[in-house]
Amino acid sequence: MKKMKRAERMVAITQVLMLKPNVLTPLTLFAERFGTAKSTISEDLVAVKESLLLSGQGHLETISGAAGGVRYIPEISKEEATQFLNMIAERLSDKERILAGGFLYMTDLLFDPAILRQLGLIFAGVFRPQRPDVVVTIETKGIPLALLTAEALGLPMVVIRSGNKVTEGTSVSINYVSGSSKRIQTMSLSRRALEPQQRVLLIDDFMKAGGTALGMKNLMAEFEAEVVGMGVLVEAQVTEEPKLVDGYLPLLQLKELDMNTGKSLVVPRLPSEFNH
Amino acid sequence: MKKMKRAERMVAITQVLMLKPNVLTPLTLFAERFGTAKSTISEDLVAVKESLLLSGQGHLETISGAAGGVRYIPEISKEEATQFLNMIAERLSDKERILAGGFLYMTDLLFDPAILRQLGLIFAGVFRPQRPDVVVTIETKGIPLALLTAEALGLPMVVIRSGNKVTEGTSVSINYVSGSSKRIQTMSLSRRALEPQQRVLLIDDFMKAGGTALGMKNLMAEFEAEVVGMGVLVEAQVTEEPKLVDGYLPLLQLKELDMNTGKSLVVPRLPSEFNH
Repeated sequence: MKKMKRAERMVAITQVLMLKPNVLTPLTLFAERFGTAKSTISEDLVAVKESLLLSGQGHLETISGAAGGVRYIPEISKEEATQFLNMIAERLSDKERILAGGFLYMTDLLFDPAILRQLGLIFAGVFRPQRPDVVVTIETKGIPLALLTAEALGLPMVVIRSGNKVTEGTSVSINYVSGSSKRIQTMSLSRRALEPQQRVLLIDDFMKAGGTALGMKNLMAEFEAEVVGMGVLVEAQVTEEPKLVDGYLPLLQLKELDMNTGKSLVVPRLPSEFNH
Repeated sequence: MKKMKRAERMVAITQVLMLKPNVLTPLTLFAERFGTAKSTISEDLVAVKESLLLSGQGHLETISGAAGGVRYIPEISKEEATQFLNMIAERLSDKERILAGGFLYMTDLLFDPAILRQLGLIFAGVFRPQRPDVVVTIETKGIPLALLTAEALGLPMVVIRSGNKVTEGTSVSINYVSGSSKRIQTMSLSRRALEPQQRVLLIDDFMKAGGTALGMKNLMAEFEAEVVGMGVLVEAQVTEEPKLVDGYLPLLQLKELDMNTGKSLVVPRLPSEFNH
């Protein structure tokens, strides 16, 4: 490979680090790949770090010592997060989205990678200080949101199955009352999905009465996991009834949904815990 | 903002483009953001393009004209794809992964963002020439794989529900026979999830007899969608029975799975259609 110039190396380093967010890369890897001294790579990294700082959309973290290296921490600025949630709130307030049962049609947004990526970065900005080990969700619609939150935090994801469908060895099932339907349902998780004492971040797409969230918390207790945070995309606030859980952080609140007048109102609510 | 140097701009441009893969960004956006002439940005882009070419992990595509701009196309090199599939095949060949019913425990890999990202890039390298409009999967375990394939291609994802759970207005349901269980099951999709004549890429995590895949194809026909490709992560080849569908491309093949001897063998099979 021909010798690269500094600017070329800086671009190549940026690419390698952004392709593996949160992963620590030793400086020797770059030194070998570019056929240059480690001290040169160090200088390149200082320059890359400064360039990235200007955008507010992710920064480099360097760790010194023998086991050290550099990693790219993806993030979203407070300004961009606010703008983004405003835009989503407006799209969700469209009366065409009102579904029977007091639900909102959100599937198109919940399955759109470009939207999920931003939401994942926002949740990461809220919950990174809690140092979770794993992101846990329940099937089905929350899975993509949980996945991109996990990726933004550099963590694996675990999916609780609804019903008793787990075919993966021993599993733990619990019954819960879905707050909105008042019906008893079951959720289950394979024993090998979580290790004891893991720090868990719960993520879900929608919270109405909080029955599902309470079930997830109870299931985590069975695994001796510690729930260090709970994020939901949309919290319904259309009745006066108190929720069955507390301590969760929504990004959006559904304030009004009237099937008769066809009026719905979703407002953004960036948690004050958002830290960037 | 202080005037940036060329190398700094090159890093910032790389970051902005990589944060929104497949999205066309007009050059004027960079010119405004960096307070510089469009011709300067053009020169920066030529240099960024060359630097990225060296890695084989994604390149820039420039489109000229008034509606033009530049976008980052994420990709994985053939060498890296081959190495990656070898590693996954080895991990899946671990006898601890054998489950009752001739299945493999793959959940940990299927829910790991770092692994899914690479798999998504490989599927994108196989199916991009077919110009799909949307990636379609069926719940539950294939969802993360389909999502990151969709992101690598810059497309939305659509999820077929199993059973008849669709609460989103009019839906279309079909019955299908799951080839392995021989039981009649139902899958359904909301009418508003797909528009007619859309070009569909089907993605799923596992294919045994192909009954589910056949059901998905039949459901797509109901929507007048055109299936332009079908990718599965693992194809079971443990019996002589022919599959119920053809034209699908697996990335891995399960050649042997013997519950008695505890032996399982998964081999990589990068499709010859992989194009990079």
